[in-house]
Amino acid sequence: MTRFALALLILVTGFLGGEGRASAEDGYRLWLRYDPVEQPARDQYRRLACQIVATSGSEIARSAAVELQRGLGGLLGAPVPVVERTSCDGAILLRREPASDTGPEGYKLRSGTVDGRRATVISAGSDRGLLYGAFALLRRVQTRQSLEPLNLRERPGVALRMLNHWDNLDRHVERGYAGQSLWDWPRLPLWRDPRIVDYARANASVGINATVLNNVNSNATILTPDWIAKVRTLADQLRPWGIRVFLSARFSAPVEIGGLPTADPLDPAVRRWWRNKSDELYVAIPDFGGFLVKANSEGQPGPQDYGRSHADGANMLAEALAPHGGQVLWRAFVYAPSADDRVKQGYAEFQPLDGRFAANVIVQVKNGPLDFQPREPFHPLFGAMPGTQLALEVQLTKEYLGFATHLAYLGPMWEEVLQSRTYRPRQGSRVRDTVTVMAGVANSGTDRNWTGSHFDQANWFAFGRLAWKPDSSAAAIADEWTKMTWGNEPGKVATITRMMMQSRGAVVDYMTPLGLAHLMGSGHHHGPAPWVADLERADWNPVYYHRAGRDGIGFDRTASGSNALGQYAPPIQRRFAQVSTTPEPYLLWFHHLAWDRRMRSGRTLWEELLGRYDRGVESVIAMRSSWATLRSEIDEERYAQVAAFLAVQEDEARWWRDASVANWQDASRRPLPRGVRAPAHPLSYYQKLRFPFAPGQAR
Amino acid sequence: MTRFALALLILVTGFLGGEGRASAEDGYRLWLRYDPVEQPARDQYRRLACQIVATSGSEIARSAAVELQRGLGGLLGAPVPVVERTSCDGAILLRREPASDTGPEGYKLRSGTVDGRRATVISAGSDRGLLYGAFALLRRVQTRQSLEPLNLRERPGVALRMLNHWDNLDRHVERGYAGQSLWDWPRLPLWRDPRIVDYARANASVGINATVLNNVNSNATILTPDWIAKVRTLADQLRPWGIRVFLSARFSAPVEIGGLPTADPLDPAVRRWWRNKSDELYVAIPDFGGFLVKANSEGQPGPQDYGRSHADGANMLAEALAPHGGQVLWRAFVYAPSADDRVKQGYAEFQPLDGRFAANVIVQVKNGPLDFQPREPFHPLFGAMPGTQLALEVQLTKEYLGFATHLAYLGPMWEEVLQSRTYRPRQGSRVRDTVTVMAGVANSGTDRNWTGSHFDQANWFAFGRLAWKPDSSAAAIADEWTKMTWGNEPGKVATITRMMMQSRGAVVDYMTPLGLAHLMGSGHHHGPAPWVADLERADWNPVYYHRAGRDGIGFDRTASGSNALGQYAPPIQRRFAQVSTTPEPYLLWFHHLAWDRRMRSGRTLWEELLGRYDRGVESVIAMRSSWATLRSEIDEERYAQVAAFLAVQEDEARWWRDASVANWQDASRRPLPRGVRAPAHPLSYYQKLRFPFAPGQAR
Repeated sequence: MTRFALALLILVTGFLGGEGRASAEDGYRLWLRYDPVEQPARDQYRRLACQIVATSGSEIARSAAVELQRGLGGLLGAPVPVVERTSCDGAILLRREPASDTGPEGYKLRSGTVDGRRATVISAGSDRGLLYGAFALLRRVQTRQSLEPLNLRERPGVALRMLNHWDNLDRHVERGYAGQSLWDWPRLPLWRDPRIVDYARANASVGINATVLNNVNSNATILTPDWIAKVRTLADQLRPWGIRVFLSARFSAPVEIGGLPTADPLDPAVRRWWRNKSDELYVAIPDFGGFLVKANSEGQPGPQDYGRSHADGANMLAEALAPHGGQVLWRAFVYAPSADDRVKQGYAEFQPLDGRFAANVIVQVKNGPLDFQPREPFHPLFGAMPGTQLALEVQLTKEYLGFATHLAYLGPMWEEVLQSRTYRPRQGSRVRDTVTVMAGVANSGTDRNWTGSHFDQANWFAFGRLAWKPDSSAAAIADEWTKMTWGNEPGKVATITRMMMQSRGAVVDYMTPLGLAHLMGSGHHHGPAPWVADLERADWNPVYYHRAGRDGIGFDRTASGSNALGQYAPPIQRRFAQVSTTPEPYLLWFHHLAWDRRMRSGRTLWEELLGRYDRGVESVIAMRSSWATLRSEIDEERYAQVAAFLAVQEDEARWWRDASVANWQDASRRPLPRGVRAPAHPLSYYQKLRFPFAPGQAR
Repeated sequence: MTRFALALLILVTGFLGGEGRASAEDGYRLWLRYDPVEQPARDQYRRLACQIVATSGSEIARSAAVELQRGLGGLLGAPVPVVERTSCDGAILLRREPASDTGPEGYKLRSGTVDGRRATVISAGSDRGLLYGAFALLRRVQTRQSLEPLNLRERPGVALRMLNHWDNLDRHVERGYAGQSLWDWPRLPLWRDPRIVDYARANASVGINATVLNNVNSNATILTPDWIAKVRTLADQLRPWGIRVFLSARFSAPVEIGGLPTADPLDPAVRRWWRNKSDELYVAIPDFGGFLVKANSEGQPGPQDYGRSHADGANMLAEALAPHGGQVLWRAFVYAPSADDRVKQGYAEFQPLDGRFAANVIVQVKNGPLDFQPREPFHPLFGAMPGTQLALEVQLTKEYLGFATHLAYLGPMWEEVLQSRTYRPRQGSRVRDTVTVMAGVANSGTDRNWTGSHFDQANWFAFGRLAWKPDSSAAAIADEWTKMTWGNEPGKVATITRMMMQSRGAVVDYMTPLGLAHLMGSGHHHGPAPWVADLERADWNPVYYHRAGRDGIGFDRTASGSNALGQYAPPIQRRFAQVSTTPEPYLLWFHHLAWDRRMRSGRTLWEELLGRYDRGVESVIAMRSSWATLRSEIDEERYAQVAAFLAVQEDEARWWRDASVANWQDASRRPLPRGVRAPAHPLSYYQKLRFPFAPGQAR
């Protein structure tokens, strides 16, 4: 057979497999794949799913039944009828239970007997609970868990589990690496894009119940009547899936679109304007969630422009929303152009305001005190504002971790921060105990696979699952996602979850090891640029953060330095004040150390640092090898994309490693130890690289 | 049955139909749908397609076989084997015939006998011809034409049939309304997006054989080595489908990336730089097509910056490309900030250069002398440069015809210009006889349906079909596209083609009737703004074009005015010099007329103008009604999107009509005749509308 005929034969085989492009494995279905379960498990599940029993309810209850039908129909390979009364043995019931112990969103899954027939009952005190219960049941089938006997109860750990979309009104997504904004503003309000429903389903399936549609760097136009009409259509599409819409509000909107001379939060006309605007919003969107506000931060307007405090500003908006049950998410991500250590400023501005925020204000705090770096210690505000509701804000979109191309599963990072002990307000407190809201900066866009890469879907999934249950293990979530997304074969699951669990550590190693941070290129944040020292503000420059010189490297944040450490609880202060008791992952975050300092390994800091970079690159090489072992077990399309992206990641990991090593050599004036590979190019080569067309830049 | 149960039942039915989102009718497949033919036709075709017989050949020949296999396999509902030697009665043969009468790209389809067996033979003198022949055969099956007896020969009417992508390197598409650029620059060269292959297939299916990847408002970065490597990957993906890559070259690249002090085309160092750059490109891309250049136009650099002519500039690039067989497309879209009528300037600058361009230079001329308006007379350069190769440039993306949302089939517009009599160089000449290249500004992007709307796919299709055969009828192409895209049912085809054929006329009526032009909003070109008079250059203002006042409306381009008419051949001059013999579609393009002037209809110009606007709106209403009759005949997803977009179109048609009428009332100081509906809002309302977030804006 000629090579030509052979190639065609392969194509024929592909054809017989039914693979047209339209049904290709392009990732559109996310983790909601619902492909038929293998035998004999399929028959076992079938015995427990002869019918779906649903009685009339809200559109949310209808979504639960519809999704069960869609999911079970796919998983079991045959339609499952929806009926109003059981008539077979082994039905699945969706049942509201008024006096429920599941709270406003929880659910129970129980095996039992109904009208003398065996049944699996999804019960809840709310239609929303039924929806989450339906997805939980489907997830059990997708991950091949038993449905019998079943007796479990779930309720969410935090009340508000929300995505923050940094989407501009021209559909550009700031820090977006997955195409354009999902919101088709030019065709709204008339066009109801069916994709929005799939977005809503994906969120509901992991318990996300709120979404902020527009960028925190906000434009007041979204609060004008024409745009509220557009938002209304989206809200109407999201509501049946239990998702409430919030908007990022520009603090100066009363001036920009209201025609007022001021946006002073204590000005009666301004207060009236916001009350009227709030009323207008609730007429259009009765379950409108409220406002997210970035104020007096990176050029955004805010109450301090008028000599007022963050509390004054937030409380004014809260007052306007309160009659309708709306909430204000007020971001604590602020830093002024002052001489003080930037990482201290959020705490310094907000901690003194504890107790001064209205009951429907939530202060939204990033996981770390800097800005979504590959690794940071937790933000000292967690635990330090017991009289204030706090939201934990994490970033799903990987602004600082290789955009969408690098494989970096963020579950371990979020678990790390949620499990961090704050020692405040109680001795046993952890970050997870101090927050009532989880907010994730979304990584979704118009890309066919939603997130720009198949593996970034895991971060969307993990965010939802952790927000639902902040005590979850990232490894367990990875296992679940892998089974739902790639299949249940044990060897495959083991390989993929191992890749995932090592991936974020790899990024830390090849980008910012040992507690380093903020070493990326200016503006676009693509690639390494630790040499940058010429930006307008000192605390925008990488050199501000690493402080590398002949004497050593690292930022002294102990009492002998900026004393940012002083913002943490005393047990943390004591532990991190000493180099010897500071965990290595945070070493150079808190200490400035000599290159020759001996590490626990016995190697010098210089050697250790070099070793981390190499370990990072090696981890990526190992991920590539692991992936290659799956070639025959993964559909061709997804296999190829992941393989190609891992190749890009290896290239870029080497670039990070080489540029960083060259920079530290230059700073330290040190030769490389024997056996350490020299960078591929001189430092000047890396310094000259420019990326004007990098995606996701702020505008 | 409750409404709830009913709704679910409908969903079950949907499920039984096998409609998951992944196989949804989302338009991704374009006109290459290959769904099974209905019986008994399917069996009849099957008798003629027992095998595909292909012998080894280039990768283009392989594409022909692969596509036949994919297409016939789908259409006939069962795989068709590819073999090297016939062994059944009724095979399809792909056969190279060295001494062919089909030219370098043509093909023949013939029923005949091979080795004593009945066969359908696709023969050609080139592998590219085989590819086009394969698509032609598939098209016959898709449109239910007979395969027997078959005896036809086709060869393209122009040698270069190319798309021009106005894609920036950050993936923003200037005048793009279908998402981002298809080229995933950040992940190139390592990532070979399979979508590029489907883009190539779509182009090949209609005979498009070249593509310019980047915006004519060009950035020199694309000519740097890192970017040439990216372009190379795309060229490698496109080549098997007979598509050559061109690049838009920035004239000042020798300065910007070459480090030279000048880009003077007569400077030896500059000439050397371009020769070296050309050599470098051909090492990476052996079949590189050449350069497209927008020079000394709208701020782009060009040879006139150095006191040289367009010919000097073009010939320098031509000289660099000539050793490799490359070509230069040099755009004639130029207009200086002079006092003269803007539509005269392209002719004035280029016609005197006739005969001075190198043999591998093609001057690329827009269909009309202004700028892709809903209707313009043909460009006077056609026929006026007999010593120069000319390209006809049309715009698939509907910058001035409602973006992607309005249904406007452009086949009739292009047919209109191609069939326009130039009377030059010969008495019988038409535009189609004066061009050797067809260039279309692409309307494709990352949107799932490629073009932003289902109906805009027709413009991509029609462009390719007309470029292949410039004498085609737009109606026949609409018929073909409709059958391939929506199905062959006669009633459906009649309804859809009727909508299509009336659609462009509707846009002309509600936007720019009776020869008006350039009345759109500034910058974004969204919506009406005939009142705009404050832009920096006179000829950027709508008032410059319509010249409406109390005395009348229209631009006198006869000898008593700008005499742009003088640039046409004498028979046209004579006909258009008189109002009475000027066709109404061009009336106000060439004449300034009193509001009370009697038209052929007996109505005054004022009444006639108002009538055209209303006719335009009514046409859209009629299209909506027509579409509604198809509800049960079209899949739900595509039906709903078209219906929603038509609703948007009606809204926007009314807006165009009302704002324009209000403006002309204001200009003419005339009351509306009895029975004419007053605009919904006062003129000031329309004047205050702002669209800062309109898509596709130039950056």
